[in-house]
Amino acid sequence: MASDGFRPLDEKALIEYIKATPTLALKLGNRFDDLQIKEVGDGNLNFVYIVIGPSGSFVIKQALPYIRCIGESWPMTKERAYFEARALKEHGRLCPDHVPEVYHFDRTMCLIGMRYIEPPHIILRKGFIAGIEYPLLAEHIAEYMARTLFYTSLLYLTTTEHKRAVTEFCGNVELCRLTEQVVFSDPYKVSQYNRCTSPYLDEDAKAVREDNILKLEVAGLKSMFCERAQALIHGDLHTGSVMVTPNSTQVIDPEFAFYGPMGFDIGAFIGNLILAYFSQNGHADDKNDRKAYKVWILKTIADTWNLFDKNFTALWDENKDGPGEAFLPEIYNNEEVHLMVKQRYMRDLLHDTLGFGAAKMIRRIVGVAHVEDFESIAEPAKRADCERKALKFAKRLLKERRQFQSIEEVVSAIEQPQP
Amino acid sequence: MASDGFRPLDEKALIEYIKATPTLALKLGNRFDDLQIKEVGDGNLNFVYIVIGPSGSFVIKQALPYIRCIGESWPMTKERAYFEARALKEHGRLCPDHVPEVYHFDRTMCLIGMRYIEPPHIILRKGFIAGIEYPLLAEHIAEYMARTLFYTSLLYLTTTEHKRAVTEFCGNVELCRLTEQVVFSDPYKVSQYNRCTSPYLDEDAKAVREDNILKLEVAGLKSMFCERAQALIHGDLHTGSVMVTPNSTQVIDPEFAFYGPMGFDIGAFIGNLILAYFSQNGHADDKNDRKAYKVWILKTIADTWNLFDKNFTALWDENKDGPGEAFLPEIYNNEEVHLMVKQRYMRDLLHDTLGFGAAKMIRRIVGVAHVEDFESIAEPAKRADCERKALKFAKRLLKERRQFQSIEEVVSAIEQPQP
Ligand SMILES: Nc1ncnc2c1ncn2[C@@H]1O[C@H](COP(=O)(O)OP(=O)(O)O)[C@@H](O)[C@H]1O
Ligand SMILES: Nc1ncnc2c1ncn2[C@@H]1O[C@H](COP(=O)(O)OP(=O)(O)O)[C@@H](O)[C@H]1O
Ligand SMILES: [Mg+2]
Ligand SMILES: [Mg+2]
Ligand SMILES: [Mg+2]
Ligand SMILES: [Mg+2]
Ligand SMILES: [Mg+2]
Repeated sequence: MASDGFRPLDEKALIEYIKATPTLALKLGNRFDDLQIKEVGDGNLNFVYIVIGPSGSFVIKQALPYIRCIGESWPMTKERAYFEARALKEHGRLCPDHVPEVYHFDRTMCLIGMRYIEPPHIILRKGFIAGIEYPLLAEHIAEYMARTLFYTSLLYLTTTEHKRAVTEFCGNVELCRLTEQVVFSDPYKVSQYNRCTSPYLDEDAKAVREDNILKLEVAGLKSMFCERAQALIHGDLHTGSVMVTPNSTQVIDPEFAFYGPMGFDIGAFIGNLILAYFSQNGHADDKNDRKAYKVWILKTIADTWNLFDKNFTALWDENKDGPGEAFLPEIYNNEEVHLMVKQRYMRDLLHDTLGFGAAKMIRRIVGVAHVEDFESIAEPAKRADCERKALKFAKRLLKERRQFQSIEEVVSAIEQPQP
Repeated sequence: MASDGFRPLDEKALIEYIKATPTLALKLGNRFDDLQIKEVGDGNLNFVYIVIGPSGSFVIKQALPYIRCIGESWPMTKERAYFEARALKEHGRLCPDHVPEVYHFDRTMCLIGMRYIEPPHIILRKGFIAGIEYPLLAEHIAEYMARTLFYTSLLYLTTTEHKRAVTEFCGNVELCRLTEQVVFSDPYKVSQYNRCTSPYLDEDAKAVREDNILKLEVAGLKSMFCERAQALIHGDLHTGSVMVTPNSTQVIDPEFAFYGPMGFDIGAFIGNLILAYFSQNGHADDKNDRKAYKVWILKTIADTWNLFDKNFTALWDENKDGPGEAFLPEIYNNEEVHLMVKQRYMRDLLHDTLGFGAAKMIRRIVGVAHVEDFESIAEPAKRADCERKALKFAKRLLKERRQFQSIEEVVSAIEQPQP
């Protein structure tokens, strides 16, 4: 045990821990016979145990003081568990339908006990690879993003509440730095951690490092990420942080949460949908050419933004006489100006979203952490072909994002052959 | 005495306080005979005592828990003294030539002891009213702004240092809220505190409240003020916060300091120069038509920005291999991209500066706190005429700021007859 009382748990130690922790023991009805414990951490950073007893279940997530997929050579504060628990509780309060409940948090042990998101839920990214349609996905994620982002922004909070919350989440600085490195820096320089489908994409990766316009644009996004405390963002909202069935959408893993730009979350999600789209040709086979599925992904991209816009501006309308201090009722509640400020806000947010989305795409192709959408395409030449198309589109999106007036224009651009 | 140990001092109590405080007593060589104490707080918020003994001197500034010029009916945290002391020390460390040294800080008493900025120093605003030229002003203030803003931004700091500092200054939220109210809100709505040169400017004030484009633009600036932690800004850098002689420039009164947008400081200063310019016709008389002086003010406006730009980008060049995490050397140190990012950064900063400068001008004409530049014009019709020209220019600047490519273009626009 470390001097701070922390110890990494294995399955055996976990059982002892559960027995000694009344909240958790109670969740299992205090019955520990036939306990099934399974470590399922397929993620990059942490250890996740599914615990199922005869009369109850939960998930235990523990942060260790390094990055799991790299190992102890890349240390990372285990305090991230604290921010994950805080964000799960805050986002869960704002959007209980789409966030697992936190049952237990132990700061010393960097350990969260939360609702087990049961089968048939799977990780959304795996659903995309399998070619499964989720008719409610866009609606659900739009609701999640609208509620969590709106209610933690100055559209709803007073400056006092907002600055207090910003202060707290400034503590999650090590995770912010990790994002700065892997999203905004490493892909644009030679780094030991970068990978790409070599040799096919070697030249493309080099071109990214030598593209001054791209680097100029990415610098602006990085500054925004570092400086702009717009709302309590999830911070890692890719399709691996979402678990789904056709009827349910659950968002997990907000350990990167802090007050940052809203577009970083919306962009992460939409950018990963676009990656899923470009990976489909690699998954097409005799039984399924994936053509209809690609149409559904494009529809989901458009619906996600449009429903987000609808939900978000509806919350704004509902709360325009509320406590939020960004737009005081006495100044902004005449119809014309209310509409003007909303349109400006949503246009800027779309552009931020496209910029961050593009940056998230690029880093998944030439940076350290790749996505299963492409990785699961066995044949390297085919994979490289999909990745190159995605990369080309992302570069264009990053540079030209301010020219897009609507998500429909973005969807059209995705469909065009990438030059 | 309040239960927290705080008590407002009068001259008599101040003498006892000094005698009981070794640092201060020592500054006077422990000689208390013939002490001269004079309260000179001509500012809006606090009490300021000049203390002169036979072998030493200093200034004592104490914050009371309300706004002095309004009275106890407008409470305001006295904790602002803590942030003023912190900012004086930090900015003083970065730019000792232009910031008075802090000798003593008493958090309980909300009291700062600092260097007495001796005569012939006067408040810059009074110099402008008197028509005095300060040949080194632009150079000095440009150095002050460049050093304080550069070294507290991510161009020089690591994310870790930056977020720690942001956290601390989030505590100055009440002063931020005061700015939000008096700069970004009250002028755009009916407020009990608003004043204008009535009846002359009544219609102009009403037009401000009904100008939707103006309100749209001001909303964007307010969001930036609330959300963007770009650097440790002074927060109240008008010409009443600067004391000058022809050879010396000293910046006082950073009680509004926090991590905010750089353009707010640069804009405050330049906006107040523009107000000084538009007030000159009201000070012209038979002996002095102020024509040459107006030319000097315009030159000072241009020099301030251009020298700021020069100093700031020089610091950037010097430190491009330094600790700052915004632009990593491996990505941004090829000559072409280094130039591109600097140009983009400075262009955006100019536009922020013009926007905030315009907002600061507007609030001084139709908001609660007016400036002596205009107030000292005895004849209301003449004063209103000066103010109206300034207001017209400010509205144009706020709306069209992104069209200006250089400060020279701004200066030309100031000189043109206001339509
Ligand atoms: N509440 C939960 N219910 C069911 N499975 C979960 C839950 N939380 C995590 N998992 C599983 O564990 C995996 C890793 O969890 P995640 O929170 O993403 O960890 P990491 O931070 O390491 O990426 C997920 O991909 C998912 O399969
Ligand atoms: N260090 C100083 N040396 C000389 N005079 C000072 C000093 N600090 C403040 N003053 C005088 O006191 C006045 C009010 O100080 P200031 O710090 O601006 O207070 P406030 O916060 O109330 O505006 C200034 O205008 C200046 O005349
Ligand atoms: Mg994960
Ligand atoms: Mg994670
Ligand atoms: Mg003052
Ligand atoms: Mg000097
Ligand atoms: Mg002051």
